[in-house]
Amino acid sequence: MAHKKLKIIPLGGLETIGMNITAFEYGDSIVVVDCGIAFPEDDMLGIDLVIPDVTYLKENLDRVKGFVITHGHEDHIGALPFVIGDVNVPIYTTQLTMGLIEHKFEERGLLDSTTRHIVRHGQTIELGAFRIEFIKTNHSIQDASALAIYTPVGTIVHTGDFKVDYTPVYGDSIDLGRLAEIGREGVLALLSDSTNAEEEGYTMSERTVGQTLGGIFSECSDTRLIIATFASNVDRVQQIINTAHQFGRRVVVQGRSMINVIGIASEMGYIRIPYDTLIDISELDDYPEEETVIITTGSQGEAMAGLSRMADGKHKWIHIKPTDTIVFSSNPIPGNEKAVSKIINELSSRGANIIYQDVHVSGHARREELKLIYSLVCPYYAIPVHGEYRHLRANAQLAHQLGIPRDRILIMQTGDVLEIDRDNAEVTGQVTAGPIFVDGSRIGDISTEVMHDRQRLAEDGVLVAVIALDHETKELRREPVIRSKGFVFIDETDTLIDEAKEFTKEKVEARLAETEYDEESLKKMLRKSLTDFMRKKTGRRPMVFPVIVDLP
Amino acid sequence: MAHKKLKIIPLGGLETIGMNITAFEYGDSIVVVDCGIAFPEDDMLGIDLVIPDVTYLKENLDRVKGFVITHGHEDHIGALPFVIGDVNVPIYTTQLTMGLIEHKFEERGLLDSTTRHIVRHGQTIELGAFRIEFIKTNHSIQDASALAIYTPVGTIVHTGDFKVDYTPVYGDSIDLGRLAEIGREGVLALLSDSTNAEEEGYTMSERTVGQTLGGIFSECSDTRLIIATFASNVDRVQQIINTAHQFGRRVVVQGRSMINVIGIASEMGYIRIPYDTLIDISELDDYPEEETVIITTGSQGEAMAGLSRMADGKHKWIHIKPTDTIVFSSNPIPGNEKAVSKIINELSSRGANIIYQDVHVSGHARREELKLIYSLVCPYYAIPVHGEYRHLRANAQLAHQLGIPRDRILIMQTGDVLEIDRDNAEVTGQVTAGPIFVDGSRIGDISTEVMHDRQRLAEDGVLVAVIALDHETKELRREPVIRSKGFVFIDETDTLIDEAKEFTKEKVEARLAETEYDEESLKKMLRKSLTDFMRKKTGRRPMVFPVIVDLP
Repeated sequence: MAHKKLKIIPLGGLETIGMNITAFEYGDSIVVVDCGIAFPEDDMLGIDLVIPDVTYLKENLDRVKGFVITHGHEDHIGALPFVIGDVNVPIYTTQLTMGLIEHKFEERGLLDSTTRHIVRHGQTIELGAFRIEFIKTNHSIQDASALAIYTPVGTIVHTGDFKVDYTPVYGDSIDLGRLAEIGREGVLALLSDSTNAEEEGYTMSERTVGQTLGGIFSECSDTRLIIATFASNVDRVQQIINTAHQFGRRVVVQGRSMINVIGIASEMGYIRIPYDTLIDISELDDYPEEETVIITTGSQGEAMAGLSRMADGKHKWIHIKPTDTIVFSSNPIPGNEKAVSKIINELSSRGANIIYQDVHVSGHARREELKLIYSLVCPYYAIPVHGEYRHLRANAQLAHQLGIPRDRILIMQTGDVLEIDRDNAEVTGQVTAGPIFVDGSRIGDISTEVMHDRQRLAEDGVLVAVIALDHETKELRREPVIRSKGFVFIDETDTLIDEAKEFTKEKVEARLAETEYDEESLKKMLRKSLTDFMRKKTGRRPMVFPVIVDLP
Repeated sequence: MAHKKLKIIPLGGLETIGMNITAFEYGDSIVVVDCGIAFPEDDMLGIDLVIPDVTYLKENLDRVKGFVITHGHEDHIGALPFVIGDVNVPIYTTQLTMGLIEHKFEERGLLDSTTRHIVRHGQTIELGAFRIEFIKTNHSIQDASALAIYTPVGTIVHTGDFKVDYTPVYGDSIDLGRLAEIGREGVLALLSDSTNAEEEGYTMSERTVGQTLGGIFSECSDTRLIIATFASNVDRVQQIINTAHQFGRRVVVQGRSMINVIGIASEMGYIRIPYDTLIDISELDDYPEEETVIITTGSQGEAMAGLSRMADGKHKWIHIKPTDTIVFSSNPIPGNEKAVSKIINELSSRGANIIYQDVHVSGHARREELKLIYSLVCPYYAIPVHGEYRHLRANAQLAHQLGIPRDRILIMQTGDVLEIDRDNAEVTGQVTAGPIFVDGSRIGDISTEVMHDRQRLAEDGVLVAVIALDHETKELRREPVIRSKGFVFIDETDTLIDEAKEFTKEKVEARLAETEYDEESLKKMLRKSLTDFMRKKTGRRPMVFPVIVDLP
């Protein structure tokens, strides 16, 4: 055993925020921390979501002991339903997190075919060569955990997504005492959340949002309130409900994911709803407007969510009026700024009063909190995780400021195999890893080439040229058919298509006359010459798509 | 004359930030303030830029007396080259603004065919029924003006884009005294810049950026400095040059638009470059790295700009090294956040030190500055301009707080005709107005339908089905040809296309057998049935594009 090394293999979660999944491997034992999705970037046209490539786990299935999940956000649990069929190993996590996973599994009929174990904070599980302890943290969802992974070569601490909240809305503060104890015993490496590593200071307590909400309820006492937030932020919903109760308002919960999460959290006791506070959306008209609050999804401007449908005037029950006050209890996630601004404009143009500043706090630690964790855990190696390169780098610089030498700060890439012990830590290889695009029902058949074609199609549209010919007589059977979509607007008087037909006919006839017939080279010639023709005529480059119909 | 009314007709600039152009009309006189472009939104696939529809000006060309331009930014001058051919009236503006317009005209051979008049601040011009006074303001480009438009029914003040900078880098502070005088004489309406109307407090002086730059130069004394900023921010460039000179560094200017603007500003004396400071990029290697500064375009992550090419390793002269410090003297414009983050990640992964916070101030007034202008100008009506609806609304609310009654605060929409005098102000009609998409060399032939097709193509790609048939015998001449692009990855073992061919063949044969031949209805049937077929098989809806090749 002595010469075996611990391997840390991130299969996602670096380079981007999302798709968190990391394998820890020692001898014949592999445990996998988290299994999340990423949301598609702007240039991933038509993609619904992105899941990690788990080829490495499939190829080493006999050694994989289990999934250990830090908390119930989509970027940590969302890929489980897609992966569990191929990598069907037991799942270990806390109660609320498991509730959210089981809801996903239930929707897809996966409950009976999977094994799941609920773990409490403070509890330690054994998985092959590893012992794993779940440590209470704070985050924007309850039951979030840091992990202490005890391995034969030393202890690894993985923070998960966390913040330090001394006054959480529900439950205890992060277990700093236990992290300090583990630190005193010696920690080989700390993998820590880099999301807010660029931000100075501390992230405010979730409880401060409650105070802000109180001020808003007090000021807007004569209007209906519509509050948009993240479905998964159970504490936020709890605070809205508490404030509503205090001000004597009834609460309607709106949006499928919001109803799901609140239902699960409420059943398990993670949210307390005072008697007679929650009403059904159909009962809304039974109460005076100023005695109601609507909690809804859609704070990121998502097109299909509750708030967007209200803004479009398409919501079945809720119609925005100039007397409404709409509160965004959220900040735009990077990339969503325009969508959020669009919905604010739409709601605003219906006359509603919009409040969108300072009704939110982040769930991720800022620099001072990271410094605290480094100082308590005292890791030999620092491995920034959960972030784009700029965030990992900011976390790395912070670790260096705290005295960790540069050669013990490791910024990894997805697919890297890091071999690590007290003597040495180096990337010794790569495994298959990366994003798999999910679009429609066929997973993974969207290749980079398909995506590239979609980019081309989106830029300047498509031009189809159909050539019916007889390859034996080398004659055209009729004049070429040319059609376009998404290219330029062509009215009846436009001669562009007629010119293109004539041009194509000449080109094909010349080619047939001068060389042996070869369909592929004919198509290649047409692609090139028609692209040039159209660029000269219109300044654009539609994707030219020649189809040869050979009719001997 | 007594019964004539003043008309204010915005042909752009509302609903969005960009494409500013407003017509003022009285009897037989029309003057047009500004003529800018907008940059395309995310869903305007393949569009290069957006210009205003000036049909109304073309239809009333004999009455249009001139363009009056407030300052030299693209969203105020950029559409002139596209519009001046159809609306060839004299252009009136300040010296630097005219220099930038003339550079555009020169590139397109428009100098000889247009009439241009340079106006000084404090000067008044007469255009038909209007007298127009140019008033000095501050903005992120020099020679910016507010306009006092004296009309037979009263005075209109248009702020242009402005901020209040008591300590500008070049020239004087905004002429608050003159605005106060005009206010004392009585102002019918104030059209004011809404860009930052949501932001509390004051926008900081441009000079504060100089202090920040001094700190950065002092701290990074042993590395090369690369500073990205807006080409049009001449004062920012001046401050970088001043700081470089003070610290004994040579300056390279990089990026086509940066070189143009600096060239024009320098020729006209709006920027002072100390002797021996500016060097050519080819001389860069002659100086120690820590004695150089590179000023570059690309601070918004624009794909073709200098900084992007450096980040990609494609720049001819400049290769990013771990010893470089790169400063973003800019904030991301809403919608550009992801692009900026991407380039920060790329530069960061090359090891460079990146500084991107607090090295920028806005050129637009915040709430306290707007309050100052309202208080000096004392308008009877308030008309918020230059912004999305949320910004206009915030400006309107501020006007109301300052005591202007709600019925004298007017939020207009592009194309509205506002008839206004002391007794009444109301929208009495609409004119043709709105965005025209420019893509390639053909202006305006990108219709909403073409854009919609591009969206569809981008989502799920295209599927072409070519049917060769003889409509007389009602027989297929050969089996259908089915090809796709941007749809799904189809490998050789995939039977999807074969199944689709078989399906298409059956559908066409059944149709030919049972009804009269009609090409359009056959295509319609194929579009619907193949879309359904593919949705069932793959969960996606490619744009189905049937082509019938009729070969009797």
